[in-house]
Amino acid sequence: MNSNPLVTDRELAFQLFEVHDAPALCALPYFSDHDRSTFDMTVSVAARFAREQLFPTYKAMDESPPVLHDGHLAVHPAAHRLYPKLLELGLLSATRPYAVGGQQLPSLVSIASQLVLMAGNAAITGFPLLTSGAAHLLERFADADLASWALEPMLSGRWGGTMALTEPHAGSSLGDITTQATLLEGRRYRVRGSKIFISAGEHDLTENIVHMTLARVPGAPAGSRGVSLFAVPKRRLEGGALVPNDLRASQAIHKIGWRGLPSLVIDYGDADDCIGWLVGEPNKGLSYMFEMMNAARIMVGANGVATASAAYHQSLQYALERPQGRALSDRDPAQPQRAIIEHADVRRMLLRQKAIVEGGLSLVLAAARLDDVASHGVEASAQAEALSLLGLLTPIVKTFPAEWGFESNALALQIHGGYGYSSEYLPESWLRDQKLNSIHEGTTGIQGLDLLGRKAIGDRGVALRLLAAAIQRAVLQAAESAPEDRGLDALGGALMRAMERLGGVTMTLAMKGATGDVASMMRHSTDYLSATCIIVVAWQWLVMATAAARGLEGAPSKADAAFYRGKRAAADYWFRTELPRALRHLELCESGEDSFSRIEKDEF
Amino acid sequence: MNSNPLVTDRELAFQLFEVHDAPALCALPYFSDHDRSTFDMTVSVAARFAREQLFPTYKAMDESPPVLHDGHLAVHPAAHRLYPKLLELGLLSATRPYAVGGQQLPSLVSIASQLVLMAGNAAITGFPLLTSGAAHLLERFADADLASWALEPMLSGRWGGTMALTEPHAGSSLGDITTQATLLEGRRYRVRGSKIFISAGEHDLTENIVHMTLARVPGAPAGSRGVSLFAVPKRRLEGGALVPNDLRASQAIHKIGWRGLPSLVIDYGDADDCIGWLVGEPNKGLSYMFEMMNAARIMVGANGVATASAAYHQSLQYALERPQGRALSDRDPAQPQRAIIEHADVRRMLLRQKAIVEGGLSLVLAAARLDDVASHGVEASAQAEALSLLGLLTPIVKTFPAEWGFESNALALQIHGGYGYSSEYLPESWLRDQKLNSIHEGTTGIQGLDLLGRKAIGDRGVALRLLAAAIQRAVLQAAESAPEDRGLDALGGALMRAMERLGGVTMTLAMKGATGDVASMMRHSTDYLSATCIIVVAWQWLVMATAAARGLEGAPSKADAAFYRGKRAAADYWFRTELPRALRHLELCESGEDSFSRIEKDEF
Repeated sequence: MNSNPLVTDRELAFQLFEVHDAPALCALPYFSDHDRSTFDMTVSVAARFAREQLFPTYKAMDESPPVLHDGHLAVHPAAHRLYPKLLELGLLSATRPYAVGGQQLPSLVSIASQLVLMAGNAAITGFPLLTSGAAHLLERFADADLASWALEPMLSGRWGGTMALTEPHAGSSLGDITTQATLLEGRRYRVRGSKIFISAGEHDLTENIVHMTLARVPGAPAGSRGVSLFAVPKRRLEGGALVPNDLRASQAIHKIGWRGLPSLVIDYGDADDCIGWLVGEPNKGLSYMFEMMNAARIMVGANGVATASAAYHQSLQYALERPQGRALSDRDPAQPQRAIIEHADVRRMLLRQKAIVEGGLSLVLAAARLDDVASHGVEASAQAEALSLLGLLTPIVKTFPAEWGFESNALALQIHGGYGYSSEYLPESWLRDQKLNSIHEGTTGIQGLDLLGRKAIGDRGVALRLLAAAIQRAVLQAAESAPEDRGLDALGGALMRAMERLGGVTMTLAMKGATGDVASMMRHSTDYLSATCIIVVAWQWLVMATAAARGLEGAPSKADAAFYRGKRAAADYWFRTELPRALRHLELCESGEDSFSRIEKDEF
Repeated sequence: MNSNPLVTDRELAFQLFEVHDAPALCALPYFSDHDRSTFDMTVSVAARFAREQLFPTYKAMDESPPVLHDGHLAVHPAAHRLYPKLLELGLLSATRPYAVGGQQLPSLVSIASQLVLMAGNAAITGFPLLTSGAAHLLERFADADLASWALEPMLSGRWGGTMALTEPHAGSSLGDITTQATLLEGRRYRVRGSKIFISAGEHDLTENIVHMTLARVPGAPAGSRGVSLFAVPKRRLEGGALVPNDLRASQAIHKIGWRGLPSLVIDYGDADDCIGWLVGEPNKGLSYMFEMMNAARIMVGANGVATASAAYHQSLQYALERPQGRALSDRDPAQPQRAIIEHADVRRMLLRQKAIVEGGLSLVLAAARLDDVASHGVEASAQAEALSLLGLLTPIVKTFPAEWGFESNALALQIHGGYGYSSEYLPESWLRDQKLNSIHEGTTGIQGLDLLGRKAIGDRGVALRLLAAAIQRAVLQAAESAPEDRGLDALGGALMRAMERLGGVTMTLAMKGATGDVASMMRHSTDYLSATCIIVVAWQWLVMATAAARGLEGAPSKADAAFYRGKRAAADYWFRTELPRALRHLELCESGEDSFSRIEKDEF
């Protein structure tokens, strides 16, 4: 089991240095203390830790989820052992400024590291990553007083943090939350309500937990413009000591995956003595959350890739080792059975996984790199462009690994045959883990609305034109930097045509909206999302194929040549097999096909 | 939870009497004692029992799988209560002749009943259904002596039966089994070996279990031509009493679904005293199994539909009841939230499920009806044609519900949002159950080889021409019997074109094979299977749409009109959304796309 690389070192190096040119980021002042060697070290230390320390605990934590007793929850013993090491690896603040104890690493490098750690055991990484997100909210929006006592313990890992958004009656519709916060004095409020699906909402890894909680103040406008953000600690500081703050984990959800990371119902203020601190201004809570949304959704994408990658490598290894059946051309039963990787359909399932996993990885890292430029670029125009393109890509980064990753995980199980259907083998657990990613941080349906409504049409095509320009650059790059591989021309041509078609369909839909028919415009938003996912990943495969072709033209070692040929095959697979499907989805968007709008509730 | 209809009564009546014309079968002598009323009663009694008795036990049996202790396994208490009632419902022998205690029911009706029972709790139905399959093998191939003592106790349900085929090193490759059987005298053999994944291989529902076991006799030819079939009872009769037969359940597999039905490793002859009885002739075991294959694979298809149907109705009910969010055209937060069925993407997910579930149901029943004609038709030519078409459809019936049903089950979970990701809700359990269906009784990859190699090309296109003829009849029928619905013309035209394309691609592939390039011919066999699945289900949707259109033209009640309009919408959905995908799969078959053949093992 330990021989699963999760993500190979060669792949990580390829992505960072041959595809996404991480060292170029060191030209930006924020990253100027770094160079290729610190990036290399960061990722390789994480990868080694993931393989040697995290992955061996994965199954045990999946099999023994923590149990809630009387409001208290003790995590798996392995989590206690691993948590301090994860802090050392910088999961709390690697990308944050030196001023708050961070290392000013690019997200590109940090997310590559986090991704391989998640591939080893996603549940355990959830604790520090959630804290990091909560701390980042405080760093960005909290006043000095709140930051002075809450931020340091979170960034050091002594306290944990959560996102407490969803309520039982308001899952995706955060404007409908009803948790109440009434002013005591200054920025202190009395909080009362209930939150559900709070990951790491209770545990014994840290002495305290700060819940970043959405609530309404009296007289707040209805809906999303009346939601405020509060920091509500499990224990509050009084006279320098931590005392209970009248909030309580009342129920643990029996999640089907990520079982090492508890998900809880939290009740606030049963005794009317739960105090929360307002973060930023009242009624701006959702806008603060939205500002952090890109980063949060990239993390979901990274998890989707991580989960699919671990399963891909597990099934690849199984396919190489498991003898079963014979070649179609030589079925002599007196000969020994062949490894199942010899069978065409098994190879198809492996190559499909590879195309999804590595395409998704490149996509996630492309988004992370845009985030680096958006946050730390030196030219305002470059920052704005990066932010705009990142906004467009965010629903793709969130969705592609989740949806295609789920398919990929199902193939990993399928390759294991009857054994895959048992919990004696790992693929079924990754399949369970993966399913969360199409649900949390906005379901796939919501990502489709976001992409089409807000990102593609809402900004009048600005971001979409940036994507088209990036694709055009990739096509030119393919011609220039790998002159001997003219197979790339066909890929580039197909990609340009698909992108043009995407632009045309977007225009058609925008026109429908402009004439007031928003329902027709948005009807096939999930198909629009699917099409865009496939096209964007084709773009990443063209970039990877170009890097591979360049590598092949540079007298590579035998192992490198094999690596590059594999990339070229996967790129071909994606363009031949998947890209045409994008066109089908776009046709549906344009077609006026309305069967599912037309059917009435009582006709199902 | 009990309000889940599993499959609605209206749907069952539609399928049996408006689509598949069950009463017409009564013209065949074997079924002549039956009429519409006995069919109605059979199915409605089963449906009521499934909803009221089986479904309420489903979750409990899933949560508490039986545990193996020292070779013995006690099933869930609910199984003891339900098992005798399942026998009363005829799960052992409803279709068998009066002579062996059967009811001579058509498979069409029997499978409709079994399907709704499986939707209620598939695991519990597994016990009698496995016994029924084993008994059928004995009825068909055993000599009079073996039948005299083994058949009656199995057909009465006092004994259970299993299929003991797979071995740890020979999962799909049954020609490689190594279990040995050496002659004692007459038809008695000493058996030694080990079998894995034996469903119902040990339990306490019956006083004995007969394992239909594949083994080799000394000197048997290598491979599949040297495999014989034995009946190996857990206890053997000696002097009128049952004594242990030296076989033992040594391990229970921790399956991820169907958890109420144990799956075991069975060791034979540890003390060299395990006796088996040869069934039929030596070395013909696999051919006997193959003769039962159509029926076994139809049962897998029925289970796939059942599992998807239960989940579909659960998510439909949830979508009707769960308020969340608002319409795109009216987002006033002061208004109450809308039921999620109002959201376009939720409706899309529901209609997709409906199209898969009901398309799959019609397909399974079409196959069952062909089985009835093949087995009990009065004209030899009609029998032969039915058998040939059934052979072609069998890999489709096996695969479509499994693969599309898994997607459908994932959508049911997705509609439940965060709740769907918890085991507090049912959809996740059906998703787990469903995954088995793409693996057992021949994986999807193997079905693709069977369809393209044996069924489509192997018989020189005979079966494919029968399918084309059946499709042509359906198109004519659409024009004749529903003259007012000219929307059907477009569906019929699209279907005819798709079928022609399927024929053309098959010819191209056959030519590749004829020139010796079997690898190219078979490379995309799974794509060929996918395309054929979609086309065949489109055929079923045309037949259903025609019946619905006919219904709408006949002054239906308000409820019936709604039912029929739902059918028409689902048919339109399938043709507009899914059928074009079939053409993409066919293009891949023809294209020579070889990325996954070209990539070498070390290039992944």
